Amino acid sequence: MQKIIFDTDPGIDDAMALLFAELSPAIDLLGITTVRGNADIEITTRNALYLTERFDMAATVYRGAGQALVVPNTPVPDFVHGEDGLGNINPEPPKREASSLDAAQFIVDQLRRYPSEVTLVAIGRLTNLAHALELAPDVAGLAKAVVVMGGALGRDGHGGNVTPCAEANIYGDPHAADIVFGAAWPVTMVGLDVTMQVMMDEARMQRIRDGGEEEGRFVYDVSRFYADFYRNTGMTTGFPVHDSSALAFVVEPELFTKQTGPVRVVCDGIAIGQTIQAVGGDRPFEHWQGRPAQSVCVGVDAEAVLALYERTLCS
Amino acid sequence: MQKIIFDTDPGIDDAMALLFAELSPAIDLLGITTVRGNADIEITTRNALYLTERFDMAATVYRGAGQALVVPNTPVPDFVHGEDGLGNINPEPPKREASSLDAAQFIVDQLRRYPSEVTLVAIGRLTNLAHALELAPDVAGLAKAVVVMGGALGRDGHGGNVTPCAEANIYGDPHAADIVFGAAWPVTMVGLDVTMQVMMDEARMQRIRDGGEEEGRFVYDVSRFYADFYRNTGMTTGFPVHDSSALAFVVEPELFTKQTGPVRVVCDGIAIGQTIQAVGGDRPFEHWQGRPAQSVCVGVDAEAVLALYERTLCS
Repeated sequence: MQKIIFDTDPGIDDAMALLFAELSPAIDLLGITTVRGNADIEITTRNALYLTERFDMAATVYRGAGQALVVPNTPVPDFVHGEDGLGNINPEPPKREASSLDAAQFIVDQLRRYPSEVTLVAIGRLTNLAHALELAPDVAGLAKAVVVMGGALGRDGHGGNVTPCAEANIYGDPHAADIVFGAAWPVTMVGLDVTMQVMMDEARMQRIRDGGEEEGRFVYDVSRFYADFYRNTGMTTGFPVHDSSALAFVVEPELFTKQTGPVRVVCDGIAIGQTIQAVGGDRPFEHWQGRPAQSVCVGVDAEAVLALYERTLCS
Repeated sequence: MQKIIFDTDPGIDDAMALLFAELSPAIDLLGITTVRGNADIEITTRNALYLTERFDMAATVYRGAGQALVVPNTPVPDFVHGEDGLGNINPEPPKREASSLDAAQFIVDQLRRYPSEVTLVAIGRLTNLAHALELAPDVAGLAKAVVVMGGALGRDGHGGNVTPCAEANIYGDPHAADIVFGAAWPVTMVGLDVTMQVMMDEARMQRIRDGGEEEGRFVYDVSRFYADFYRNTGMTTGFPVHDSSALAFVVEPELFTKQTGPVRVVCDGIAIGQTIQAVGGDRPFEHWQGRPAQSVCVGVDAEAVLALYERTLCS
């Protein structure tokens, strides 16, 4: 079992990924840290608590950052995730409460407690991870891996989903992302270059609904709003599986191909939020020099990722 | 015959493209404008004069910008083009002299003289074209087309050749490029996304040398330095045909596939010199809104472009 900390801003596809993590026999969920993104921090934290309570999860929820490091908060994408962040299912107020421990401190504590064993799976903005590095820069050396859902290299024309070159999680806190990619832990970026290839179609969602117990019915219900949004943008083959693809990388990394090189995030100007990787060749580039080589997923066996998700939900 | 003004910084592949233009029965070469880039402006102008004299071309040479609009001059890439800009063939000093008319003024005059007839083929930095728009903003409406060799969308991993995201011609004068892409003339970008696919191999260069009269022998000779440079970077299939691909687009546009949308050029920060196109969908993006839709080549029939070049040189 792989120990993970799940850093998330539920969010519909976050909820789908959290149930995937909970049900996966390969994952040991140490804790859930929340961040502002798909909704305000009060709502993403409430949703995380609601999900852990409803599905009787052992993991504790740690509330994290409600504000990016530098850039101002942009409006929440309620047109993608609904006003409640869960596709307007209007969840019951949960009885569970978040830990009094801050998300960043929890990350630091767990990395120290289990050196080289913990994978941080960050499927929202990277603010909490940046705060953890601020609190204790040395913990970068203690992480087993960091897997980020976010960013885009612009391969195959998927330049961005917030601007022509920026993906939402990175755009929402570019300074945090640049710190995380520059730290001395091994980061793998699972960005739009691959997640836009992993398209969940309606037939599979119905199989998950019918074969996946309460969890299956739930992910079907919350995904209706999300599926409608993407359908209305002109996508005919389904909706992209962003967050669960990052988790699929943790469980079955061989389903992905990667390229290696230092990654910078643009922190100002019209390209703000863009992830740029220097690859191929030993030529030193001024702003990339001295940064650690990180991995970016550039290929994916989409059918196998979707099958893994279905199999896990229906197990 | 298509009337073109050839804006160039010879440059080895510029010289190869200039002979292509001169020999093409589809091209009427109105004049040659020079710019700093592959070498200093004195050298690129000298080389243009040398080439017109040696190959008895009718076109006059108009000296252009020796300095980018805003950014300081970067060192010349003599490791790609040789100290003389022509692969260290040490050309004889030409007897011809450049016109006393400035390049930008020549462009303005010709666009006014032949409304909707002139295609500007710009295979260096876009400084002269930006100066022409400064002199007379209305001439944008008089150009038939502008074809730019430069830029990169980063598709297929070809993000840049000067930085991980910037191509040399755009990097050398990003402000000029942003003006040119934003003007009300139809621009087509022939950038690294396609030119890195058009690889000239040694066997074809030998056929051109043996079948192409003096021009064939010349392009073979000057290309030795250039071919060595690319071979030393690890390219095993030949060298990329950057500049002649732009001309091939003018002659046979059907060999290329394009995508359409406004293009911005990053003018500061770590992504400086990057070309970013907003495509797909009607969502308005702040910094792209209100800019004209331009074309960017994203696919090419490389074999056909190479065959066109060989056929033209050997005709």
